Amino acid sequence: MDSATCLSLAVQESPPVHALTVVYGQRHMREIRCARALARHYGIEKHSVLDIPIGPLLDSALTDRRRTLPRAGTRGRSAIPSTYVPARNTLLLAVALGYAESHRLARIYLGVNAVDYSGYPDCRPEYLRAFERLARLATRVGVEEHRSIHIRAPLLRKSKADIVRWGERLGVPWRLTWSCYAGGAEPCGVCDSCRLRALGFREAGVRDPTVPMGRAE
Amino acid sequence: MDSATCLSLAVQESPPVHALTVVYGQRHMREIRCARALARHYGIEKHSVLDIPIGPLLDSALTDRRRTLPRAGTRGRSAIPSTYVPARNTLLLAVALGYAESHRLARIYLGVNAVDYSGYPDCRPEYLRAFERLARLATRVGVEEHRSIHIRAPLLRKSKADIVRWGERLGVPWRLTWSCYAGGAEPCGVCDSCRLRALGFREAGVRDPTVPMGRAE
Repeated sequence: MDSATCLSLAVQESPPVHALTVVYGQRHMREIRCARALARHYGIEKHSVLDIPIGPLLDSALTDRRRTLPRAGTRGRSAIPSTYVPARNTLLLAVALGYAESHRLARIYLGVNAVDYSGYPDCRPEYLRAFERLARLATRVGVEEHRSIHIRAPLLRKSKADIVRWGERLGVPWRLTWSCYAGGAEPCGVCDSCRLRALGFREAGVRDPTVPMGRAE
Repeated sequence: MDSATCLSLAVQESPPVHALTVVYGQRHMREIRCARALARHYGIEKHSVLDIPIGPLLDSALTDRRRTLPRAGTRGRSAIPSTYVPARNTLLLAVALGYAESHRLARIYLGVNAVDYSGYPDCRPEYLRAFERLARLATRVGVEEHRSIHIRAPLLRKSKADIVRWGERLGVPWRLTWSCYAGGAEPCGVCDSCRLRALGFREAGVRDPTVPMGRAE
């Protein structure tokens, strides 16, 4: 839902939009199918799906099927959830940076959010500022044209309910979005991601079309 | 030769060493075979070769076979060679950062060099400092333990001749190294990379075992 809202905003603000999806060893491919469907929905001409099989090299519950996914109250001592994927956003932004420079694009949209997932270090405003600084030093446009490739994270300080409300105004097709960390036919309803999503829809007073009718929440 | 010297130094300074090779769409696989041979030579237990098929998404003579490789005098107006791969070192460092954090490693060795390839923006000291700062903000160890994953670039300010002399002292097996940008059975001898290598060996007074005997240079 974050990426979809972000994409919808990018289409409105900065056409033409190129879309980039990275398969980094997520437990399931459902979100990849959703990304393709969303790109079709928004008429994105260039949507690249890049396979980076880095999962086995990383220590994360999100890429290791043998580990249990966190539920309410099982987070443990660390403030950072076990679903944190080491350096994931740095990897995504590195790919996007090379792509943006190669295609002479001015900005990179990223659907990160610092409110609900405040435990992820690479979802914080200071992290994004540091990456933008790096991007200026790392690229040809930064050196030769003193132009920076801007990192735009419009959802950074929004709550999940804010995102639902904003997405409603933008007409985001929620039925094409997927948040559940598990890989079932329906959202599991108990993982951190499902719970935050449900809370957001409830607070915003919007029905989530991906949740089966009548399910107790 | 830079990566091999860097690896040799890492093995001496910071054992045990894990090695990471990224296949990002280089024109040839020769350097990948060399990386495997070097890892065996140094008895590296964990050597990961990660395939990131990003070449078609990037604008670079190094990943696009249809483009000609630069030779002496063909660099054109830009100070940055056409072999520059957009955001390549950011991508390599992002992968290494996720790996290092997952395996609780303290430092990342990178064989970048700011002297001979001064045209590459992501081979400069200020770029590496910016990445190190990013790494502190991006990671769990940075946030929870206030530890940074250190980026070590020991060859940064060395000339190619310095690297050959240093490698000689470290006992680097030059026969297992490969610098040529083209993909022939022998080094082409005319690309930027071959020329800088030849200059380094000549200045250091060392014979390069990968160059056929009797070839005019």
